[in-house]
Amino acid sequence: MKIQLKSTDNELSYTGMNENGFEQFFSGKKAACSPMETLLMSAAACSSIDLEILLKKMRQSYASIEVEVTGERRQEITPAKFIAIHLHFKITGEVTEKKANKAVQMSLEKMCSVTHSLDPSIEITSSVEIIQN
Amino acid sequence: MKIQLKSTDNELSYTGMNENGFEQFFSGKKAACSPMETLLMSAAACSSIDLEILLKKMRQSYASIEVEVTGERRQEITPAKFIAIHLHFKITGEVTEKKANKAVQMSLEKMCSVTHSLDPSIEITSSVEIIQN
Repeated sequence: MKIQLKSTDNELSYTGMNENGFEQFFSGKKAACSPMETLLMSAAACSSIDLEILLKKMRQSYASIEVEVTGERRQEITPAKFIAIHLHFKITGEVTEKKANKAVQMSLEKMCSVTHSLDPSIEITSSVEIIQN
Repeated sequence: MKIQLKSTDNELSYTGMNENGFEQFFSGKKAACSPMETLLMSAAACSSIDLEILLKKMRQSYASIEVEVTGERRQEITPAKFIAIHLHFKITGEVTEKKANKAVQMSLEKMCSVTHSLDPSIEITSSVEIIQN
């Protein structure tokens, strides 16, 4: 897997591009998402992809998935790496709590390539909320 | 640090949003960057931010920074997590090789919050190319 990153100025702004030309934008000065914010988004997106695949296999009918993610960073010492990440999944649809919980658990324990690429010392927790539509 | 992620359809597409409303787009079906590609971009952007800060401190005059990143993923077993990441930094400007190498080394060894949030078992390597402008 290959990606490219290019600075767009000399003031901490970057464009990332994948091999198909799709882009992401980054900033170290609050002019776009930060790299650490984007890392949290990547974890949530990777796990949500698993969740969709599993819910479909389980024949659960969902309308949408939202994830609220909080990341706690080490404060005192550089680097300010993550020490804890919580993912709160909000699934709208005709989904049983049992199956939703099982799908989230399967993703985070066995499937998700992003969260499994993170430092195992980071405490990753999750919660699930079902919203009937 | 908080972010939100929302599905934009039922077909593995997502929008991530930070607290200031800046967005990133993700897809599990090649309709945008994938979460794993975006993880590589986050690592490159985080390290490049350090690099810019250090080059400025070192009074090195750079015009642009590009990073080519390759990520090797585990093939046989799920999850297909990263096992090796190489970052090739291309710095255009009046920058000495010694200072550029030192700055990249300082970022990857001591400063970069994203790479230090990754599994320490991932082999992270780097190379530096200076392009005189």
